[in-house]
Amino acid sequence: MPVRDTSSSLDHSLLRRALTAARATEIQPFEVMEVLARANELQRAGRHIVRMEIGEPDFTAPGPVVEAAASAMRDGLTAYTPALGLSELREEVAAFYARRYGVNVSPARIAITAGASGALLLALATVLDPGDEVLVPDPGYPCYRHFVRAFEGVARTLPVEAKNAFHPTAAQVEAAWTPRTKAIVLGSPSNPTGTLIDPLQLATIARFVGSRGGVLVADEIYQGLSYTDEVRTALDLPGDVVVINSFSKYFCMTGWRLGWAVLPEGLVRGFEKLAQHFFICPPTLSQRAALAAFLPETVAILEDRRAEFRRRRDFVVPALEAIGFGVPAKPNGAFYVYADCSRFGADSRAFTFDKLLEQAGVAATPGSDFGANGTGRFVRFAYTRNMEELEEGISRIRRACER
Amino acid sequence: MPVRDTSSSLDHSLLRRALTAARATEIQPFEVMEVLARANELQRAGRHIVRMEIGEPDFTAPGPVVEAAASAMRDGLTAYTPALGLSELREEVAAFYARRYGVNVSPARIAITAGASGALLLALATVLDPGDEVLVPDPGYPCYRHFVRAFEGVARTLPVEAKNAFHPTAAQVEAAWTPRTKAIVLGSPSNPTGTLIDPLQLATIARFVGSRGGVLVADEIYQGLSYTDEVRTALDLPGDVVVINSFSKYFCMTGWRLGWAVLPEGLVRGFEKLAQHFFICPPTLSQRAALAAFLPETVAILEDRRAEFRRRRDFVVPALEAIGFGVPAKPNGAFYVYADCSRFGADSRAFTFDKLLEQAGVAATPGSDFGANGTGRFVRFAYTRNMEELEEGISRIRRACER
Repeated sequence: MPVRDTSSSLDHSLLRRALTAARATEIQPFEVMEVLARANELQRAGRHIVRMEIGEPDFTAPGPVVEAAASAMRDGLTAYTPALGLSELREEVAAFYARRYGVNVSPARIAITAGASGALLLALATVLDPGDEVLVPDPGYPCYRHFVRAFEGVARTLPVEAKNAFHPTAAQVEAAWTPRTKAIVLGSPSNPTGTLIDPLQLATIARFVGSRGGVLVADEIYQGLSYTDEVRTALDLPGDVVVINSFSKYFCMTGWRLGWAVLPEGLVRGFEKLAQHFFICPPTLSQRAALAAFLPETVAILEDRRAEFRRRRDFVVPALEAIGFGVPAKPNGAFYVYADCSRFGADSRAFTFDKLLEQAGVAATPGSDFGANGTGRFVRFAYTRNMEELEEGISRIRRACER
Repeated sequence: MPVRDTSSSLDHSLLRRALTAARATEIQPFEVMEVLARANELQRAGRHIVRMEIGEPDFTAPGPVVEAAASAMRDGLTAYTPALGLSELREEVAAFYARRYGVNVSPARIAITAGASGALLLALATVLDPGDEVLVPDPGYPCYRHFVRAFEGVARTLPVEAKNAFHPTAAQVEAAWTPRTKAIVLGSPSNPTGTLIDPLQLATIARFVGSRGGVLVADEIYQGLSYTDEVRTALDLPGDVVVINSFSKYFCMTGWRLGWAVLPEGLVRGFEKLAQHFFICPPTLSQRAALAAFLPETVAILEDRRAEFRRRRDFVVPALEAIGFGVPAKPNGAFYVYADCSRFGADSRAFTFDKLLEQAGVAATPGSDFGANGTGRFVRFAYTRNMEELEEGISRIRRACER
């Protein structure tokens, strides 16, 4: 009898569903959040930490952008906007593509969103049915696979190699594509590697994806922060290409939560309907502020900052190599160095927490945040601190690693 | 041979998947957007339209809120915040519940979000597995069922009746609950009806839902705009209750895109992980601004506005009844009147577009935006315009309806 009772109570607890859905259980948090929390703890305890873990510029929004926001606020221009954003801002973004990249795109295809995150979320919600497969690079930005999981798609990782600048090759994409594959997501410049994809490979991938009726999602969130002369956009590639971008990185407007997507015509209506319900509209003040983001005086400030990021990269990369880190693919964009730390221990997570954070007082992100493909040997450093801080960081890392 | 060719090309087009996912095809746009577009068109052509279609206060953010945003902007406090929001703001919201509703809630259970929309999206993403059923009222806010659809759940509508103030009864909920039911979403005060749910019914529903291990999502976005003395929150009800609220309506901060959810402890972690990836964080300036939303001087302004909304309701409801509209359940919250217009024609959509908009020059929302349960007889008027405009609107409606 007692046995029956127990079993019946077990049955009851088994039948009772979990409160939390599978997607929320399976989706992993950013590991960097643990680093960040511990770094904050150490700082509160009075220790100085060089913060090289965060993907956020140390610069804030340029003066003209702040002025535009202040003026909109004074005028009470803070009501809801259309779901796809202010038409003036969509036109500004279109003009930006024409001016900067020589690409013509209709403002009707541009959707202003709540950050690149909002753009990615809506784009994948618009194209993915349950079970649809999506190819994502490993290492790569972890949200790609999480968004896919969130809408019941299946993320298939493409292991990318240093010899290909940590980007998929057309051959890899063709080999991995199945009848269930609906899309591929690529980030260039890449987070965490800061590398740009070879334009010929990308064009070949676009043609292939187009021939299969798939969607190429090109995450160009770091496009403005490129340190080569030949920066392109995936916008003029063939097939159904969704381009994602943001005011967070190049424009230094992180907390303003504003980005955009450029959509194939056939996706605009679906994306708009979802945007209406999911977001109502992107933050209005941020949109008003962003109207000043393309002014020549703003761009002059941003170009100076880009030059500063480049100077930092030119300091950090060789300095890390001199200490003994491997940088097998040189970053020429974003503000990250993806560095092989295997010379200093077997596991980059332990290296990040014990050696770098606790011992050296330098916060960085363990490679494991970005996938499973050799990521345990890597650590990501963000050069989102000024030169003085970066020099201090490098000295600390050197001392800790030489011990 | 030509037949084979044709058939093979047909097969090809059939095999080729739709570019847009089923969710984006099935989810319907707000019909009010059509009204809005046509009203804008008429205005651009020089005609004055009384805008009673939009669920947006005509007041903008109170002075202290704007000041707080301006000061944060001057200080460059615009970086990313934690995914669940600034801890100071979570504490302010907790203090607000204690002060205003006498309910104790830990700030750890409060998530600041990108509007009530962000809160609803994340809450349903956190609890719904594909196929899970969710009960939603009909008529009700259409996003409830769209969010459920977006995460592959199944919305089951509860036809609500005027005699129950357009809210579900406990008996209805019990009858509709199946082993697949995971949650119920209720809005009180309701959009579109402006009615509050009977507290005893709600408590009975909460107990029942709790006994089934389900989740009660209480959308309290219009809670601050209630015109009775006995306003409660669902927060102190038993079971797993998620409370949704916003800075958009009572606090008049629509375009700022800021809201919150109060979560059962068991859902906080899942919600937080999804928030990290979906949103990074809610808009920072809006959070800084909202820190001033609970100041006594702000609340004094907002309470004056609430009194003004009440005056408008006290004018609009009897005025519509005098014209011949039926208002079978008197609104005592929000800023909507859900009015039976069947005396003026068979179909409220035609009535809204032809009689009201084109003929009278008054924009309103057809009931069909809110479901299928008798909604074709109803139209929703928003009293989000000043008394002068509302008087003009009522005169125009009277003239058009008397013809």
